[in-house]
Amino acid sequence: VKPVSGAGPGGAPLLGGSLGDVGEDALVRAVIGRYRPPPPLLLVPAGDDAAVLDVHGPLVVSTDTLVESADFRRDWSGGHDVGVKLAAQNFADVAAMGARPLALLVSLAAPADLPLGWATALADGLDDETARAGAFVAGGDVSQSPQLVLTATALGVLDGAVVRRSGARPGDVVALAGRTGPSAAGLALLLAAGSPAAAAGLAPSASALVRAHLAPRPGYAAGPDAAGAGATALIDVSDGLLRDAGRVALASGVVLDLEPAALAPPADLVTAAAALGDGEVAVEWVLTGGEDHALLACFPPDAGLPAPFVAVGRVIEARDEPGVLVGGGPWSGPDGWHHFA
Amino acid sequence: VKPVSGAGPGGAPLLGGSLGDVGEDALVRAVIGRYRPPPPLLLVPAGDDAAVLDVHGPLVVSTDTLVESADFRRDWSGGHDVGVKLAAQNFADVAAMGARPLALLVSLAAPADLPLGWATALADGLDDETARAGAFVAGGDVSQSPQLVLTATALGVLDGAVVRRSGARPGDVVALAGRTGPSAAGLALLLAAGSPAAAAGLAPSASALVRAHLAPRPGYAAGPDAAGAGATALIDVSDGLLRDAGRVALASGVVLDLEPAALAPPADLVTAAAALGDGEVAVEWVLTGGEDHALLACFPPDAGLPAPFVAVGRVIEARDEPGVLVGGGPWSGPDGWHHFA
Repeated sequence: VKPVSGAGPGGAPLLGGSLGDVGEDALVRAVIGRYRPPPPLLLVPAGDDAAVLDVHGPLVVSTDTLVESADFRRDWSGGHDVGVKLAAQNFADVAAMGARPLALLVSLAAPADLPLGWATALADGLDDETARAGAFVAGGDVSQSPQLVLTATALGVLDGAVVRRSGARPGDVVALAGRTGPSAAGLALLLAAGSPAAAAGLAPSASALVRAHLAPRPGYAAGPDAAGAGATALIDVSDGLLRDAGRVALASGVVLDLEPAALAPPADLVTAAAALGDGEVAVEWVLTGGEDHALLACFPPDAGLPAPFVAVGRVIEARDEPGVLVGGGPWSGPDGWHHFA
Repeated sequence: VKPVSGAGPGGAPLLGGSLGDVGEDALVRAVIGRYRPPPPLLLVPAGDDAAVLDVHGPLVVSTDTLVESADFRRDWSGGHDVGVKLAAQNFADVAAMGARPLALLVSLAAPADLPLGWATALADGLDDETARAGAFVAGGDVSQSPQLVLTATALGVLDGAVVRRSGARPGDVVALAGRTGPSAAGLALLLAAGSPAAAAGLAPSASALVRAHLAPRPGYAAGPDAAGAGATALIDVSDGLLRDAGRVALASGVVLDLEPAALAPPADLVTAAAALGDGEVAVEWVLTGGEDHALLACFPPDAGLPAPFVAVGRVIEARDEPGVLVGGGPWSGPDGWHHFA
């Protein structure tokens, strides 16, 4: 339903060209043209020095970056996929404070030979996932770079209390909204097969797992819903369940004891692991896989868990030091994703 | 007055290492430790999923990116310089809406072999210029990238009316706060001499011009002051006076006629141009040099110009099409900086 963005400065169609062919101003016009009309609270939209929003009360802000090669591959991900992923990881951080997504700003640093069609597909993906989050794209920036690097900043608003990482107390229920593991499984399938098409043939569940890796679609409402239900701590699981649970444990000065039965890998992960010839890896995907952007929360023992939260453990006292246990004992495998490691 | 940020995970001093030596969490702690204590309106500081700010009323947001090689060179610019420049170009956009700088978010995408000392100097530069702007660093993100790419998002608040690019009317006075040209002159000196030290020897004014290029220090208060004085249009001159004046002309449907006498190059630019053996280039620096982040405003004819605004022209009716004239006629040289050109 979105129009092709018209013609370039010399009347040539834009979508066949590269960024170098069309130049900055035409690129900005083409990209802005992909976004849905903003709501009235965007007082000044993209196109001026800055955007102006009508905000009242506490504002939640977060920024996150995707780097080609490190975070995505253009032979695996279309521009739309990358746009969805960039919006998702930013809004997940906003939801993880208990906030409702409000707006997104996007910086595109791109080589001059990037096809314009890729940049407009990126804008479409950003716009789609931003709309799915109930937010809008408020503005952005383009610049030239040998490396394709995308940074977004998400804004959100709090309707109730902010939920930090530091409020978990012994006796709380540890709960998860959304799944962990599909993105890591999808990546493993892609690495084994070499392409999304080849990966899809590895197992019946493979295609959906690959999609979960390339373009995650987290549930953002779980964040404000957790806040409304009295959550004591909340975090976006972006670097792996064990690693992010460890951050809650450290900030709260407690131990999170995860229940192995609640974290048993579902059938789609088990069959994908079997297809890769390593049945054991499915548990690892669940415990250490990042980028699904599930939300991990702690709730007082008497709080009802709002859907889709599911109990996955208990908060206990830290006798020695804060940390994470699985079934009362330490987990001996890797704990998740480390940048610069 | 800033402490060295302590020791790495294994007790090793951090500053001698690279990002790959210390890892993400230690890097984040080291960088956060460089920032001044935030004011009470930062309800949740960096270290959680997102920062939370107490905002009431219209919020101004803008994002801008610096890419190594394209926008800065590490052999010319220290981390502190790049931090100052990144903060300056972002807050200049906020000021150009008539807003007061409030907060900055920063994304650092860096190679693993980046020296940690460079990253902490970057944080210091960001913090210094952010404090100079009357704002604070609210949070950020680090990720690994073969290319060093820095993106910041600036937030600002409006005490009065927002000033867009589109309000200039025939009869208005065109005025400039800050100078245009020093940054372009500094770059030309650097390109000719090959290094800041060698460039400093080219002319008596060279050292200051090189500093203006590497670490611009614009006056942000001119933005809200212009709004308070009734400015009809306002823009950050980041791509050159002619090009950015052209954006005001286009958005407002008018012609901006600049007065050559008001734009005559001052002595420091004239001597720098002479040292480079091209006396004519000084005028070009003034008309097309970007990155000084002067503010260009239009004021009603009866408005007093707030300091440090100086009249540089008049707004006249667009008989044929909107645009910019110099002394009543067209300018035949280049008009300024184009990305992807």
